[in-house]
Amino acid sequence: MMSTLFTDRLWKRVDTIWNSYLDHPFVKGLGEGWLEKNKFKHWLKQDYVYLIEYSRLLALGSVKAKDLETMTTFAKLLYNTLEVEMDLHREYASQFGITPKELEETEPGATMTAYTSYMLNVSHRGGVEHVMASLLTCAWSYNFIGKELANWPGSVDHEFYGHWVQMYSSEEFTKLTEECKDLMNQLAEGKPERELVELEEIVVKTSLYEYMFWDMAEKEEEWPVNLAVNQIKSS
Amino acid sequence: MMSTLFTDRLWKRVDTIWNSYLDHPFVKGLGEGWLEKNKFKHWLKQDYVYLIEYSRLLALGSVKAKDLETMTTFAKLLYNTLEVEMDLHREYASQFGITPKELEETEPGATMTAYTSYMLNVSHRGGVEHVMASLLTCAWSYNFIGKELANWPGSVDHEFYGHWVQMYSSEEFTKLTEECKDLMNQLAEGKPERELVELEEIVVKTSLYEYMFWDMAEKEEEWPVNLAVNQIKSS
Amino acid sequence: MMSTLFTDRLWKRVDTIWNSYLDHPFVKGLGEGWLEKNKFKHWLKQDYVYLIEYSRLLALGSVKAKDLETMTTFAKLLYNTLEVEMDLHREYASQFGITPKELEETEPGATMTAYTSYMLNVSHRGGVEHVMASLLTCAWSYNFIGKELANWPGSVDHEFYGHWVQMYSSEEFTKLTEECKDLMNQLAEGKPERELVELEEIVVKTSLYEYMFWDMAEKEEEWPVNLAVNQIKSS
Amino acid sequence: MMSTLFTDRLWKRVDTIWNSYLDHPFVKGLGEGWLEKNKFKHWLKQDYVYLIEYSRLLALGSVKAKDLETMTTFAKLLYNTLEVEMDLHREYASQFGITPKELEETEPGATMTAYTSYMLNVSHRGGVEHVMASLLTCAWSYNFIGKELANWPGSVDHEFYGHWVQMYSSEEFTKLTEECKDLMNQLAEGKPERELVELEEIVVKTSLYEYMFWDMAEKEEEWPVNLAVNQIKSS
Repeated sequence: MMSTLFTDRLWKRVDTIWNSYLDHPFVKGLGEGWLEKNKFKHWLKQDYVYLIEYSRLLALGSVKAKDLETMTTFAKLLYNTLEVEMDLHREYASQFGITPKELEETEPGATMTAYTSYMLNVSHRGGVEHVMASLLTCAWSYNFIGKELANWPGSVDHEFYGHWVQMYSSEEFTKLTEECKDLMNQLAEGKPERELVELEEIVVKTSLYEYMFWDMAEKEEEWPVNLAVNQIKSS
Repeated sequence: MMSTLFTDRLWKRVDTIWNSYLDHPFVKGLGEGWLEKNKFKHWLKQDYVYLIEYSRLLALGSVKAKDLETMTTFAKLLYNTLEVEMDLHREYASQFGITPKELEETEPGATMTAYTSYMLNVSHRGGVEHVMASLLTCAWSYNFIGKELANWPGSVDHEFYGHWVQMYSSEEFTKLTEECKDLMNQLAEGKPERELVELEEIVVKTSLYEYMFWDMAEKEEEWPVNLAVNQIKSS
Repeated sequence: MMSTLFTDRLWKRVDTIWNSYLDHPFVKGLGEGWLEKNKFKHWLKQDYVYLIEYSRLLALGSVKAKDLETMTTFAKLLYNTLEVEMDLHREYASQFGITPKELEETEPGATMTAYTSYMLNVSHRGGVEHVMASLLTCAWSYNFIGKELANWPGSVDHEFYGHWVQMYSSEEFTKLTEECKDLMNQLAEGKPERELVELEEIVVKTSLYEYMFWDMAEKEEEWPVNLAVNQIKSS
Repeated sequence: MMSTLFTDRLWKRVDTIWNSYLDHPFVKGLGEGWLEKNKFKHWLKQDYVYLIEYSRLLALGSVKAKDLETMTTFAKLLYNTLEVEMDLHREYASQFGITPKELEETEPGATMTAYTSYMLNVSHRGGVEHVMASLLTCAWSYNFIGKELANWPGSVDHEFYGHWVQMYSSEEFTKLTEECKDLMNQLAEGKPERELVELEEIVVKTSLYEYMFWDMAEKEEEWPVNLAVNQIKSS
């Protein structure tokens, strides 16, 4: 008897949430090409600081891995994120007139901080399987969105957003996503139901955070605190 | 020459933020006695799950403490929170018709999760001084609010909210707050500016989270995700 | 079909190791009453600093526990160790002319450091089940030794060592041991073989460390580094 | 006024300990070329598993670093260790007839486990400065030994051990050591005395562990547990 893959079970939980991303004005605007640049710039900056915290999570994967092979997988992902992906990010941002300095000085927003703190906290508390469950949604849902948007007319050729769609629908990124899914399945295999529920919860929560992240970019949000407080903050 | 206490420096940063709490409708309604019970019940439930995560932070203080005395301080706070304070919480909640079972089954909300994940993450990453900086705002700002509200006419005698005001303005809670401040000052003493800035940042961020926590209770918020997603979530 | 308890499986792995403790001159001398006091004093001091690190492990159990009940169990064990057990330790030590100050100033020895660093490291890396597997051997094997020695003629009435035998063979300590075993079994239930092997490995390693700890006391060892180095160390 | 570099202060503490390595039969035999191959093979195997745990420590540096630059430094060291250095290790080991499979299957010895558990535990408990203090001794003391041995007649040209001496006395390894020292100095700068003492303690302890590691190789030690126990272990 074939047991169901854990990622198939996960898919059933996140299917509707992820499909709701495609209806979100930010993602819709990205795929149809009419997204306001300011909103995308806001996303680019928050995503830049997100990648820094995501890198800590990859490093934690190497700390917590149970064998040399998995340690090396995480180490390569970490190296690749810090040395390659962030460079691409800086390059892409420059097309929108954002300087490296501006990226560096991005103030971490509330949603970015909530999302990454959540992932890092559950990963510190648990084992390598919690790290993997935390990392999974970001990679997998971006690949899902990328591949969906790639089917929309004109999306991959768009002057500004075509690059985004190409990147996340690419064969290379799809392969990386599949590797993440494989590792998740290996780590989940044979685990008792109570532990699978726990990992599933992480994937659902990070899926909500992904929605909130799109929403944060759409609304160009920083911290949901009233004006009086913000004035103090910056003084 | 006397050096300024670190908590005096902190006060200058959070003064206006904390004073803005007193103008917030939730806190104002609590002190003036007209707060809607449903909002307070929402706060009680989220605060209950908050205390669980706050307890993890106290436990982390014991893990990271540098001497037996500080380990013991955190262990006592932890024991007291789990064995005494949460019982008081259950008792108080029962006055509002909330059963222990309901408290236990509270779904952690977005603001509660963001706030506690933030504290636990920076504390895992750093040392005992980061744990202390994370813990400080909650205790100290509740004592600040309690003592302010206690001066408002009729606040301490209010049928439902008087207990809250009495608890957080009490001599005992004030003493506990002072102990926390003393420990923060000890840990910060002589540290280089770059590290003080880091600890200060934690106290400012948790002060923003406190504001957001009052706001969450006022708005009876759970997760800021659209209806479609919520329907999935609960199905 | 009844599945075997995980602790029964563990017993099969550690049975011979633990029985070898009873043949070790330190334990034999303790049970037969002829153990040199200096050796016991060395043990008392190293065990005192051991208890501090063991308390960190208990605190980590509270950080990593998955439910409020388990968090509270660890918090009580922590509180009890720091507030009750260490006091008993100080009292017992005073019967051997060791002052509280001497206990406090004990230089952590090589075996104590290796043993506690091992437990804390695997526990930081893993989840609450790794904390529990780390804690288990100390409690359970002391109870095993205590109950064995209690059957030896005169052991419980011995002027100096009777107290030790009584304490670890007591109903109370036996009950605590059973609680630890129950919690271990709960956490291990239904886990896949690869994870059980990992937890088993921790119990075997800590069983080796227990042997080394008795041996360290017998040999009044500190650090296995040559004289030249020690001279430097203390200068 | 120039303040003394922290690494100069450290040097004063470890000078004699490190010089005692040069008198240790293993290191002496390595530099003079008469070291028995079996002892070196034992070292190679234990060092291989040591590098795995050392890599976890490098990963933890990336988790705990306070800025992107330091995160990247640790990520590069991690990647380099897992992808480059361990390959060199496998290649070098093959010259002694040790297969990659044998290296993989090396049972972690007592000294290796004690040393790496100690570093990982203090690093989990503290911040990035504790990670750096933990890492420093291994890199720096190997560079110290390498450069000393390189002056001994014939050492760099030795058929088997010349490679070792060349590697650790090389310009590249010296540069890496200097970078580690610079980072340590940056992290220690302006810290209060009580915290410098703590970091210094880590460097002294790891220096003792380095001595014990040479000694472990010399004695081809595994676990200091009696025969009866070992028989059980392997059955």
